Amino acid sequence: MTNKEGGILYLIPVSIDQNSKESVLLEKHQKIVKDLDYFVVENAKTARFYLSALKLHKPIHQLNFEVLDKSTNEEEIKNFLIPLIKGFNVGLLSESGCPAVADPGAKMVALAHQNNIKVIPMTGPSSILLALMASGLNGQQFKFHGYLPSDKEERIKKIISIENESKKNNETEIFIETPYRNQHVFNDLIENLKEQTKLCIGLDITSQNELILTKNIGDWKKEITRDLKNKPCVFLLQS
Amino acid sequence: MTNKEGGILYLIPVSIDQNSKESVLLEKHQKIVKDLDYFVVENAKTARFYLSALKLHKPIHQLNFEVLDKSTNEEEIKNFLIPLIKGFNVGLLSESGCPAVADPGAKMVALAHQNNIKVIPMTGPSSILLALMASGLNGQQFKFHGYLPSDKEERIKKIISIENESKKNNETEIFIETPYRNQHVFNDLIENLKEQTKLCIGLDITSQNELILTKNIGDWKKEITRDLKNKPCVFLLQS
Repeated sequence: MTNKEGGILYLIPVSIDQNSKESVLLEKHQKIVKDLDYFVVENAKTARFYLSALKLHKPIHQLNFEVLDKSTNEEEIKNFLIPLIKGFNVGLLSESGCPAVADPGAKMVALAHQNNIKVIPMTGPSSILLALMASGLNGQQFKFHGYLPSDKEERIKKIISIENESKKNNETEIFIETPYRNQHVFNDLIENLKEQTKLCIGLDITSQNELILTKNIGDWKKEITRDLKNKPCVFLLQS
Repeated sequence: MTNKEGGILYLIPVSIDQNSKESVLLEKHQKIVKDLDYFVVENAKTARFYLSALKLHKPIHQLNFEVLDKSTNEEEIKNFLIPLIKGFNVGLLSESGCPAVADPGAKMVALAHQNNIKVIPMTGPSSILLALMASGLNGQQFKFHGYLPSDKEERIKKIISIENESKKNNETEIFIETPYRNQHVFNDLIENLKEQTKLCIGLDITSQNELILTKNIGDWKKEITRDLKNKPCVFLLQS
């Protein structure tokens, strides 16, 4: 199916829970995805795994997959726009959750706008947004910091500066960490934040084991043995 | 249905498009909502309109609705927790989009955590997140400011300070405005931001008329007559 006005770039969320093949799309969006021939994906293997569960109209080997990850350069991404310019619709998928938020897909969306290509985002799970909703912390003003520094000294400095920022701007501060480093971050938070600062931890969001808890640091100190290791986690704080 | 371990507070997204009765919930979440007897809602009329389309298991007049809006005080909200403490599940609905983000529902979620009540957020549309995805701007770091000041002079000061913040922190700045004031905000942005600053405008998100465009200010100046008046809009900028 081509479109004389140019193709549409659809932003297609995938499951956050990597073990789940369950669709996270609304029915009307599933119908659109089933008709697509062109995909740009962060990881070809997980994208095929996810799409195969949607029962696409064509066998998966007849579809076109391009990989857009951290190492993809701008010239390559420009080539991914060619089907759109020719009038074909393209689906952009991230490795987890919503594309173009905290992943390299945003570069393709930016180029689409520069080429007057229509962009339509589909509703889907974002661990950042779900954690914010369920935290009970300020949702009127908030800031997402991405990853904290990996060096312990730098990380502690950043944690203290984030706590001050929250107080000064009356906002919720949100950040993530690679799962194997969560326990270190948790310990640094407990040891360095003020007793009254509220900390929310969102673990394994959307999975069977999901757990989203908000306590002040004084209360978290009673749970210092809580195991966060290797579990996907979103951290939120408000002081 | 009661639960000996205490009820669960479900955060139930609703349509952003106020004219649409279409469900924005995944099938598995619709099933949960159909079984609920207790709801806490920002606006009873729109919540009933939305829920009636889900074909609930009971007539809508047999369900319990409490209103939680800007004027609801903490003592009243504590009363809304009683069914949860007794073991009944409760659904929290905002007027539009995801509850507890940029609306008063967060107060109830905070009290739920203080009372060790389990909170489960459901996936749904957030105009903030959808606009960010589709903007092509930085999704690795971003900040949501809520509403800008209504006074023109204050607003312009804020716009300039936000632009500097974006440059300094390499982050996307996101804000919203009441629809009748959009045109003024748009004009202030065009007149006061630097030519190279990128501005994304997300109009009527999720509706038939959705339009999400990112251009630099130099290019927006050629579209100064664009009509944003009375259309729900999210603004995003990156300098």
